[in-house]
Amino acid sequence: MNNLDELLKEYNKYKMMNLHLDLSRGKPCIEQLDLSMPMMDVLSSHVDLKCEDGTDCRNYGVLGGIDECKRLLGDIIEVDPKKIIIFGNSSLNIMYNLISRSMTHGILGSTPWCKLDKIKWLCPVPGYDRHFAITEHFGIEMINIPLYADGPDMDLIEEYIKDESVKGIWCVPKYSNPDGITYSEAVVKRFARLKPAAKDFRVYWDNAYSVHHLYDDNQDFLLEIINECERCGNPDLVYKFTSTSKISFPGSGIAALACSENNKKEILNDLKYQTIGYDKVNQLRHVKFFKNLDGIKMQMKKHAAILRPKFELVERILDEEVGDIVNFTKPHGGYFISLYVKSCAKEVVESCKKLGVILTDAGCSYPYHNDPTNSNIRIAPSFPSIDELELAIKILCLVIKIETLKKEYENK
Amino acid sequence: MNNLDELLKEYNKYKMMNLHLDLSRGKPCIEQLDLSMPMMDVLSSHVDLKCEDGTDCRNYGVLGGIDECKRLLGDIIEVDPKKIIIFGNSSLNIMYNLISRSMTHGILGSTPWCKLDKIKWLCPVPGYDRHFAITEHFGIEMINIPLYADGPDMDLIEEYIKDESVKGIWCVPKYSNPDGITYSEAVVKRFARLKPAAKDFRVYWDNAYSVHHLYDDNQDFLLEIINECERCGNPDLVYKFTSTSKISFPGSGIAALACSENNKKEILNDLKYQTIGYDKVNQLRHVKFFKNLDGIKMQMKKHAAILRPKFELVERILDEEVGDIVNFTKPHGGYFISLYVKSCAKEVVESCKKLGVILTDAGCSYPYHNDPTNSNIRIAPSFPSIDELELAIKILCLVIKIETLKKEYENK
Repeated sequence: MNNLDELLKEYNKYKMMNLHLDLSRGKPCIEQLDLSMPMMDVLSSHVDLKCEDGTDCRNYGVLGGIDECKRLLGDIIEVDPKKIIIFGNSSLNIMYNLISRSMTHGILGSTPWCKLDKIKWLCPVPGYDRHFAITEHFGIEMINIPLYADGPDMDLIEEYIKDESVKGIWCVPKYSNPDGITYSEAVVKRFARLKPAAKDFRVYWDNAYSVHHLYDDNQDFLLEIINECERCGNPDLVYKFTSTSKISFPGSGIAALACSENNKKEILNDLKYQTIGYDKVNQLRHVKFFKNLDGIKMQMKKHAAILRPKFELVERILDEEVGDIVNFTKPHGGYFISLYVKSCAKEVVESCKKLGVILTDAGCSYPYHNDPTNSNIRIAPSFPSIDELELAIKILCLVIKIETLKKEYENK
Repeated sequence: MNNLDELLKEYNKYKMMNLHLDLSRGKPCIEQLDLSMPMMDVLSSHVDLKCEDGTDCRNYGVLGGIDECKRLLGDIIEVDPKKIIIFGNSSLNIMYNLISRSMTHGILGSTPWCKLDKIKWLCPVPGYDRHFAITEHFGIEMINIPLYADGPDMDLIEEYIKDESVKGIWCVPKYSNPDGITYSEAVVKRFARLKPAAKDFRVYWDNAYSVHHLYDDNQDFLLEIINECERCGNPDLVYKFTSTSKISFPGSGIAALACSENNKKEILNDLKYQTIGYDKVNQLRHVKFFKNLDGIKMQMKKHAAILRPKFELVERILDEEVGDIVNFTKPHGGYFISLYVKSCAKEVVESCKKLGVILTDAGCSYPYHNDPTNSNIRIAPSFPSIDELELAIKILCLVIKIETLKKEYENK
């Protein structure tokens, strides 16, 4: 490894460049957004905006979403359309909504959480910062659960759910954020068989990356949980989420919830106070554009063709430059590469920021932003161009070398 | 007046016709929806989906809405765009959201309502059923406030707000639902000067019909409340709502909140947990279609041209047929005619239903569906065709005659 002085000289060279390279969020790049531009043409003043049952999508009504859209999103997550509710443009918003209504109204007759002294939540780590932000916002105590290559520590989960104040768990079961792992069949089966002490315990199964493969061949397989729960007499355990945010346009897509009949009935009954209905014209637009699961798969291949070279570039440079001093994931899908440095994640992210390379804040993948080993850095390679990405990752590697050396000196 | 036997003969004649005529909800008709079809053409794969500050509307971000959309909706309700937050497609959803967050998190540092024993709410009556449904859903005790031709009983309101458990009031200040009245300047000024005991008391000012005039000349004027509150040192008192639901497409429109800087800061800070952002593409679509307030006004004239003959038809038939036994409003705007029968509203609505003429449930315009005098019926003339409407109102008049006669017999 180069000595620190040489590395710092190079660091200062980059400092002069006034860069701004953003690797912080899992945002699709312009080329990915362009893939959905034809969606802007499927509706026009000459197209009938009725859905298949004859309902005029322009008017009020149809609280749970139009049938053809339920079918499309149901197909994406392998769930019967009868178990689907279509919401607005954000699955995160559905999750917030469900936790909020659990606080104020309780679940299927149980005590509203705001009337209880203590609510706890299980958080496989590292995980999605916006999940943890919701539970923190509601004052829910979060408990770290280690996440392994095949899913979270199920022994620990089975232990914790004996506590009646534990009311839920955040899961990104496929191409997880940020580690990119997919829960094994055995893990999903154990999930479906959980018997929590709290009747109002729910598994928040955020299937955000269900069809977001990077490779044609090397794809992960996830056992479908709603059906599995039903099969073993545990139908109400899971809320499953999906959206088209990273399929069509982020922020102008369609989000959906899949759940049991009991859950669905309760949630729809609550929803009717919240709104007269979500945007059916946009639901129709998505259906007319994608048509069916084949249309979705075709679109996802195009996304993959844009994303794959970016992931491979990051992996190659990391291997070459810092392969001996860090660990990192090589996921088969999703939006992130998860990097583990030697107890200097905060320092690396701070130092990169000074050079204009913006990474997600260190610690963000842990509840309360507290990464106990200060080692995880989430890399989101999707948004920058290949050239920008190459520069950003080279700078990242330089900074990792510097901070790792500094750490070694400190520890001497 | 005809005798009861004759009337019942006519009633039975209608019964044979198997009608289905829906006057229950304030839904625009097909011709009104058609007015916005060109909006489906303003975006296409050839149109740049950047907003004026260069942001790509297709991607994530911009929590509070794009500037040009804030300007458009701000203009509709005469509020500085800096005071506007753009949400999703439903202003009702914003109101639900605000009450829900008041329950779980409190307002500007005050105790969350779910921690308090009792929350009360003032409800000018008759009013909007979906408003009352929200407060009822949260277990908030609703108190009726009489609504006069110039607005609610302000003496009573000023008295009630001395009670710290009174936390809010529902208002539809212009072309009110269902009475069609507009609050006078004096009333708005008293609103702006309210000094509630509860610091977290908020006026929910649902300006749903701000530009929804029926006539070019005979238009109501409403004093703008946000500015008025600011002027008299009471800036945080009001949440003001609007949407394009009855301007463009109901359910595929844009909704907005206007409020003070303090309120806005708090609400945006809360929103960031709820979503990454609302549908900016639809915001852009609305701006590109309407361009500015002139575009909105032009559209509203076209709506009025369709709606006006329907209102006038209803008013004429009511005058001719039952003018001597009922009272009803002749509003200058909005979506409803409010009809007052002689203590037989429930019976009239039930009896109409049997003939296939669907009116909003009697009592619906009162908290807990309890119309103390059983007299108010809300007529929504917008949706049916002129022919259907004529038939429906004739049937309604017949039923009113029958039920009024029955009531008279009973009271003899």
